Amino acid sequence: MTRLNVDLLVLASAMIPVDPPGLVIRDGYVAVEGGRIVSIGRRSSMPPVSAEEVVEGRGMVALPGLVNAHTHVAMTLLRGLASDRPLDEWLREIWRVEAKMGPEEVLDGARLGILEMLLSGTTTFSDMYFHEDSVARAALESGVRAVLSYGMIDAPGWERDPDKTVKELREAERFIEDWHMAGGGRIRAAVGPHAPYTCSEELLRASAELARSRGLRLHIHLSETRREVEELRERAGEGPPSYLDSLGVLGPNVLAAHGVWLDREEISLLASKGASVVHCPASNLKLASGIAPVADMLREGVNVALGTDGPASNDSLDMFREMRLAALLQRGSRLDPRALTSWDVLRMATVNGARALGLADEIGTLEAGKRADLILVDLRRPHLSTQRDPVSALVFSATGDDVDTVIVDGRVIVRARRIMTMDAGEVVERASRAATRLASG
Amino acid sequence: MTRLNVDLLVLASAMIPVDPPGLVIRDGYVAVEGGRIVSIGRRSSMPPVSAEEVVEGRGMVALPGLVNAHTHVAMTLLRGLASDRPLDEWLREIWRVEAKMGPEEVLDGARLGILEMLLSGTTTFSDMYFHEDSVARAALESGVRAVLSYGMIDAPGWERDPDKTVKELREAERFIEDWHMAGGGRIRAAVGPHAPYTCSEELLRASAELARSRGLRLHIHLSETRREVEELRERAGEGPPSYLDSLGVLGPNVLAAHGVWLDREEISLLASKGASVVHCPASNLKLASGIAPVADMLREGVNVALGTDGPASNDSLDMFREMRLAALLQRGSRLDPRALTSWDVLRMATVNGARALGLADEIGTLEAGKRADLILVDLRRPHLSTQRDPVSALVFSATGDDVDTVIVDGRVIVRARRIMTMDAGEVVERASRAATRLASG
Repeated sequence: MTRLNVDLLVLASAMIPVDPPGLVIRDGYVAVEGGRIVSIGRRSSMPPVSAEEVVEGRGMVALPGLVNAHTHVAMTLLRGLASDRPLDEWLREIWRVEAKMGPEEVLDGARLGILEMLLSGTTTFSDMYFHEDSVARAALESGVRAVLSYGMIDAPGWERDPDKTVKELREAERFIEDWHMAGGGRIRAAVGPHAPYTCSEELLRASAELARSRGLRLHIHLSETRREVEELRERAGEGPPSYLDSLGVLGPNVLAAHGVWLDREEISLLASKGASVVHCPASNLKLASGIAPVADMLREGVNVALGTDGPASNDSLDMFREMRLAALLQRGSRLDPRALTSWDVLRMATVNGARALGLADEIGTLEAGKRADLILVDLRRPHLSTQRDPVSALVFSATGDDVDTVIVDGRVIVRARRIMTMDAGEVVERASRAATRLASG
Repeated sequence: MTRLNVDLLVLASAMIPVDPPGLVIRDGYVAVEGGRIVSIGRRSSMPPVSAEEVVEGRGMVALPGLVNAHTHVAMTLLRGLASDRPLDEWLREIWRVEAKMGPEEVLDGARLGILEMLLSGTTTFSDMYFHEDSVARAALESGVRAVLSYGMIDAPGWERDPDKTVKELREAERFIEDWHMAGGGRIRAAVGPHAPYTCSEELLRASAELARSRGLRLHIHLSETRREVEELRERAGEGPPSYLDSLGVLGPNVLAAHGVWLDREEISLLASKGASVVHCPASNLKLASGIAPVADMLREGVNVALGTDGPASNDSLDMFREMRLAALLQRGSRLDPRALTSWDVLRMATVNGARALGLADEIGTLEAGKRADLILVDLRRPHLSTQRDPVSALVFSATGDDVDTVIVDGRVIVRARRIMTMDAGEVVERASRAATRLASG
């Protein structure tokens, strides 16, 4: 056997590559060279290896880094705002404060959010917001992987402003030019028309065209609340999915957040078009939007990913808590303990997320040839110690605080729960100051 | 002003006494003498104090220790067992393994569970299990506060075994004699007939009489699954609450776990009898039992507490995650963002729990005269740092891992996330070995 010379060798008591489903490798290794996995398997069959860096995950389980497929990460600055108010009051309060946010505030908020995500095992996130350059900058410097979109709105309240349409598209194109494939491909741009009820037909059509011509994802909110669906039916005579389809928007590059209010036909339509839906259970519950038909979507073949949504409606960016909630909610609300298994949910948070973001060839599983995005979770902590099944432990017992090590693109970013790429204390302090500033006056 | 000489002085950036509702004391202090709170208030109005021990909670919020009002704590050893199987298969598997558990296994499991609870801010728990002496022993030595019941069953599958009735009652009385008021009152015994569908009428009547004559709580499972309710209706012609009432069981000393399948009349009945219901949302979802009508119960005046249930159906003992889930679930399932506020949930996990356990005069709030059971949560951690509202932070953003300090009966048991009363490593190792032993063969 020839000796393998690699940058990084990761050892762990258990490894869950996610594909093939059900496989748990006991005492496994992952060898990483040039940011990619070059070899993975049981330690007993490991070739001789020389590694510049070794991460020894004794008592730990290794798995692909989690993919948070829908968020507005800078909203860390708005966390807890109007927490117990009805939706319309909550939204008014959010908008009032957002209006005061400039690029600096978005940068401070994004840095805090990315810090939280990395510490809790998220290696890739998909974002939509304004001043998105600040989010891109924070993502680039932190080492996280990101798919970012400038959120376009030209028709709030159904009333189109034609100047706005042009301006929004121009800004989206500018953002794409500046950021797509930055950081050696770690940063990707997407096209982000906010929602059918805030964008004109013209903007939606042009967004679809822009995404298609550039080969980009189209990130949009879809059927989040009953009210928005009813209003569109009244106005356009059809629900959001067929409305988007009639405008030529739906396709395999579409990343539709929420999908709470979807009927059978709409689910079939999304499946047939190959669109992905991002399930955001905590946000849907907190804002009283409802419970998405995740089990039905999966059965019909829709690719369902998982997201936290913005931390103002969650109020967390911890994907472990999101996995747990997704599993519990489908089982309990459908009175079916098999509605969503721990494996289903783990796939939603990894490989399905990668597919939704167009990164299925790059991330989402641990296999040779893919980028080395992986995390180690410490199974020796008391509340995980007696779990028989590591996947059940990850989904039902773990939180993001159990993540010990985070590796993105082959680079060790978190080790022993400490982040290497950011000054955590300073990030927290700057964000706290910004949040206080926004809260006053 | 006379100088206060006390055992312990706790300082915190914010204090939430829970009563009166809504009050947050900025820069507060709590002075503790002989295990009781003797003074609490703003630091600016603190009398001169000499304290033997000072806990300085800079950047932290102090609140009453959480009350886990329904669990089977030794089931840490069964965590993750048959995690994705339907209820009947899950139960068969649980029973198969439980049959192998002796007093040593229950001791190992209880120690691990108590370790997890203390580390995550639970200072009082209410338990029902077999070999409950082991749970009592673990509780006594750990410093936690507990209300413990030996779980009685004399009619599994509705078929009564008269010998069993007598034996179970004798064992319950023996347990009460041995343990009630142990540890200076820190351990209380309760009477624990398992459920209407596993106990005979004779046992239920005798349990009620026993609890009344000794002035104890009666801890029982109630209306957890639709099937159990339907079966009782068929057999007895009435649902569980009126069935228990007709046997003379319902009263202000009753602690009824679950209450998932309750109609309006049953809720009114429980309210009029002054019985408490323990909501266990994670377990109810995981086992696909359903969603309890918590908002209705609270509106009708039922005292609703919060519990994790056993870690085999949760799979966690973290009451912070339980609070979050309770709040999210009521809001989302009822499409009402005001269905359960963060304050409602915090009360369920503290003062309502204390009331349910008959300890309202002793714990559940921070006020002079009560036992000093309190915890400090570190609000400087990144994911809590920008929360405007400390109660929203506790309910929606925090997990048990954010608990820094835990004090029970005026004794500091956890400090800087380290436990003083147990050898955590040994507890984890013994429990892991026991779980492995139970899993094999």
